[in-house]
Amino acid sequence: MLPAILDLASLKSTYASGLSPLDLVEEVIIRRNASDDPAIFIMPTPDDMLRDAAKALMARAPNPNSLPLWGIPFAVKDNIDVAGLPTTAACPAFAYHPDMDATVVARLKAAGALVIGKTNLDQFATGLNGTRSPHGAPRSVFDKDYVSGGSSSGSAVAVASGLASFALGTDTAGSGRVPAAFNNLVGIKPTPGLVPNVGVVPACRSVDVVTIFAATVGDGVAIRKVMEGYDAADPFSRKAAPASLPASGLRIGVLDGAEREFFGNRQVEALYDAAIERARVLGATIVAFDYAPFRQAAELLYNGPWVAERLAAVKDFLATNAGDFDPTVHTIIEGAKAYDAVDAFEGRYKLEALRQKTREEWGKADILMLPTSPTTYTVEEMKADPIVKNGHFGRYTNFVNLLDCAAIAVPAGFDAHGHLPAGVTLIGPAFTDDALASFADAMHRTLNAGMGKDRVAKIPEASRVPQADDGSVPIVVVGAHLSGMPLNHELASSGGYRLKTCRTAGDYRLFALSGTVPPKPGLVRDPSFAGKGVEVEVWALSPEAFGRFVQKIPAPLGIGKISLDDGTAVSGFLCEAHAIVDALDITDFGGWRNYLRAKAKTTAS
Amino acid sequence: MLPAILDLASLKSTYASGLSPLDLVEEVIIRRNASDDPAIFIMPTPDDMLRDAAKALMARAPNPNSLPLWGIPFAVKDNIDVAGLPTTAACPAFAYHPDMDATVVARLKAAGALVIGKTNLDQFATGLNGTRSPHGAPRSVFDKDYVSGGSSSGSAVAVASGLASFALGTDTAGSGRVPAAFNNLVGIKPTPGLVPNVGVVPACRSVDVVTIFAATVGDGVAIRKVMEGYDAADPFSRKAAPASLPASGLRIGVLDGAEREFFGNRQVEALYDAAIERARVLGATIVAFDYAPFRQAAELLYNGPWVAERLAAVKDFLATNAGDFDPTVHTIIEGAKAYDAVDAFEGRYKLEALRQKTREEWGKADILMLPTSPTTYTVEEMKADPIVKNGHFGRYTNFVNLLDCAAIAVPAGFDAHGHLPAGVTLIGPAFTDDALASFADAMHRTLNAGMGKDRVAKIPEASRVPQADDGSVPIVVVGAHLSGMPLNHELASSGGYRLKTCRTAGDYRLFALSGTVPPKPGLVRDPSFAGKGVEVEVWALSPEAFGRFVQKIPAPLGIGKISLDDGTAVSGFLCEAHAIVDALDITDFGGWRNYLRAKAKTTAS
Repeated sequence: MLPAILDLASLKSTYASGLSPLDLVEEVIIRRNASDDPAIFIMPTPDDMLRDAAKALMARAPNPNSLPLWGIPFAVKDNIDVAGLPTTAACPAFAYHPDMDATVVARLKAAGALVIGKTNLDQFATGLNGTRSPHGAPRSVFDKDYVSGGSSSGSAVAVASGLASFALGTDTAGSGRVPAAFNNLVGIKPTPGLVPNVGVVPACRSVDVVTIFAATVGDGVAIRKVMEGYDAADPFSRKAAPASLPASGLRIGVLDGAEREFFGNRQVEALYDAAIERARVLGATIVAFDYAPFRQAAELLYNGPWVAERLAAVKDFLATNAGDFDPTVHTIIEGAKAYDAVDAFEGRYKLEALRQKTREEWGKADILMLPTSPTTYTVEEMKADPIVKNGHFGRYTNFVNLLDCAAIAVPAGFDAHGHLPAGVTLIGPAFTDDALASFADAMHRTLNAGMGKDRVAKIPEASRVPQADDGSVPIVVVGAHLSGMPLNHELASSGGYRLKTCRTAGDYRLFALSGTVPPKPGLVRDPSFAGKGVEVEVWALSPEAFGRFVQKIPAPLGIGKISLDDGTAVSGFLCEAHAIVDALDITDFGGWRNYLRAKAKTTAS
Repeated sequence: MLPAILDLASLKSTYASGLSPLDLVEEVIIRRNASDDPAIFIMPTPDDMLRDAAKALMARAPNPNSLPLWGIPFAVKDNIDVAGLPTTAACPAFAYHPDMDATVVARLKAAGALVIGKTNLDQFATGLNGTRSPHGAPRSVFDKDYVSGGSSSGSAVAVASGLASFALGTDTAGSGRVPAAFNNLVGIKPTPGLVPNVGVVPACRSVDVVTIFAATVGDGVAIRKVMEGYDAADPFSRKAAPASLPASGLRIGVLDGAEREFFGNRQVEALYDAAIERARVLGATIVAFDYAPFRQAAELLYNGPWVAERLAAVKDFLATNAGDFDPTVHTIIEGAKAYDAVDAFEGRYKLEALRQKTREEWGKADILMLPTSPTTYTVEEMKADPIVKNGHFGRYTNFVNLLDCAAIAVPAGFDAHGHLPAGVTLIGPAFTDDALASFADAMHRTLNAGMGKDRVAKIPEASRVPQADDGSVPIVVVGAHLSGMPLNHELASSGGYRLKTCRTAGDYRLFALSGTVPPKPGLVRDPSFAGKGVEVEVWALSPEAFGRFVQKIPAPLGIGKISLDDGTAVSGFLCEAHAIVDALDITDFGGWRNYLRAKAKTTAS
């Protein structure tokens, strides 16, 4: 019936076969009770409350297709408000009872999703390892000796162990990505400001991001689309158009030389190298870049004034409840008191200077592919050296929000012993969230390492992320704009790229226009004519470049729709009829290039 | 010979008549020596150094037209580096001798401009009034009892009194605008990051902007274009495309109700109201908006953690030289020590929350027009209450850099006694610098209040700023896209606006295409035909909207160039010839609208 991992496509297909949300929640209750990890939840949604939510959904929306997340169970990190359940941030003395859902929870519920519980975390989301909680440390679903990763520890384990279809995390330094790597999951880390933080306990407000743990990239993107959108109540919420990435020839920046640091973990290094190889096979161009300015930005997050944001978030509570903190979290947050306002601004100056340096590196690569975490540790190892070893996990994650990037963490497979998983993260400039997803999904699919704890699960085809539309407009060129011809630079210099060479439908005639400089042909459709088609090229331009291009075209040429030999109609060059009255019909040459060649031979001979 | 005010057009015209840069510098030396304000310069460029610079320019570029600022004299605020002259920031003990010019100075020199001296300022650019300097207070050129405004005090007075064609200021809170208002000048305050700050002593690094005092808006814009452009050495330097403003129907937000505060100065209030009336006469739509969130952001700059940036800039010097500070400046900067890093981040949260509120207000207005300073004071009044009265000057300026705006301060005329001037500032969103300029120039020209101290000077026509190109593409529509027709919404909903209704040239025929839904005509050029032209509308679209629009047009229609009755060729709808073979020639109706009307009558009867 229900698969081990509750990915969206599988669960929706089960709903389509007649399962009801009430059946689903009963199964979730059974799985929660049977779980061998007692540290996943701080507060599971009480059984009857969960049943009531399922019944309410069925009453509100009887049709499974009426809502995008109809009957989808999800877990919520316990620093995100769910009305009716306490929010504790893993500090019982801090608990409060929110009247309202966080904006993202409200949007997910409205879309039909069901909250199955509030999950454990590194207290106040301060950590990347999952051991800093009075509720115990959730464990990697693959080895109970190993950390789950954090701070969104319980959320990741809930999804990886099949208790929820997805779970919400939060991510300041990497909390929405590291636990994904350690549990064979996808972690969707939106661009800061894309998803609102209203109703989320702040860690570092200026860089906090709500994230999604999911079984597949397609699931995560579908869920993010429900959650995203401007909320004026969040000071850091932003409105912005999606940014595109090249539709082909993606350049992927990877670690090089001295910047490759895995803290001795050759297994993770080998999986990183394998991921690079898979990216190459997928058609990406692998490029080296200098990670140093990114690393330096990463180091600022904990070893700089941003830690004062953590203090700002809890300072009143700290003043009265210092003894209620996890000792490591307390040490970190107390450390913020050493920073004054001058330090805060000087930290910003350093960050902005590093941002300028990273701009140069972004000139080399479209996206970066980095190890999600360079290594992992057992719970005992982590507890023995909690700050240093936690820092290792953040080596390739800490810079991402500070530098305003989008990221998707994807599984990278299991070590040579088939024991522990690792992950890689694809990182793009702000608002490339959608553009990153198709490549991230393709990377995940080439892996064949299952989903979560189920290592043999197939990623459903229904979850496939289509190639992101880069918004470009195809345009058919016929003459002086063909590759190598005098006006081709107008396309190439506006970011255009060639899609293909092909032929028009058979009912076009080509004429050599007289008196044009450089010489140009005119393409005219003649429905009474049955020829072999004219050779053309199809180029792609952004809408803006296309608009500027069209504006520059002189009479008698213009842009209309041209029927190609594959039956499609694509924007392209046409010629006004009056201009061909005394023009030479060169249709028989099959194209402008052939005509020019033939003419050159005639002239030469 | 040389006019009292050395605006660019007048000086260039004098150069064209045979004046040499050497003649110019001799005149500048005479004027400097004759100046009755001893507080303008901290260090005038020594006479012989100035002569040498003129000679070097003549040797390097003998032709006056070879460089955009050939032989143009300018003054530099003494917190901006000029190689060979000390930089003091009006604190003699702080003086250093820079080896290199600030980036902006280097660019101006390369363009042919000549540095005539380093000007006085409120120490460390901390102030808006001009009295906080050990070198004395420069005075308003209109009354020696009155402050010049600051912090760029000497720079404004140098231009207003005819010693320089333009001068550089810096502007954190309003230092590049307030002195413009008090001296009948234009103050160009670029968007933060547009002009690099390399070689500038920081005040608040995250919001400092180098500015230009000029006699006309056109001068200021021409100078800014020489200075602007990315510099990777400045952490806050930015690359961005210019932002446009509507080419017509500009909505101008003005103060309303309780937010109108002139501290009892009815003269400035009357000049503000007169400016609003002039804007209306120029065709702007005057709209009320809520200034409260802008005011609250303005208050953060001095009464919030940003003052710690001033401390960051001088903290090492302050530790050893506290006694060398101006007392008021010392009090302000010492005050920064009360702020810790938590305060710094909480200040940012407040600012971001206010930014969200101001977004709503920007929905109401394209630009804001505010009093530059709501009042002015004598030097004695200012010295008696230096912090409160200085704060009055910043009421409408302090928010502008914090909220990432472009601004141009323009003169608003003289009070009813013809005694003191006031100004208004036009403020637009980031990177509207060019788009603001044409309206600012038009406002200045409607005033007839001269330039600087010369109240009767005419603003030269050669300095006129043309209507900013909003980048839109004109498109001729013939049929279903005309106003009120079924497809017109495709233009209106993509931000298009109608430019005019007119006729094509006489050699076009119009056909009613058969089988089109909605019904559409086809326009075809026939050079053998001499008709009366076809009625069309010209609409404007952004290049991107135009590109998307063209992409959607189905065959047999397309976009080519259409000749209009005024002889211009504009992009517009054409029809493939094959489609009109059996279409009805409706040219005699004179246009699609007339044809439809006639057809409706026929059908009705």
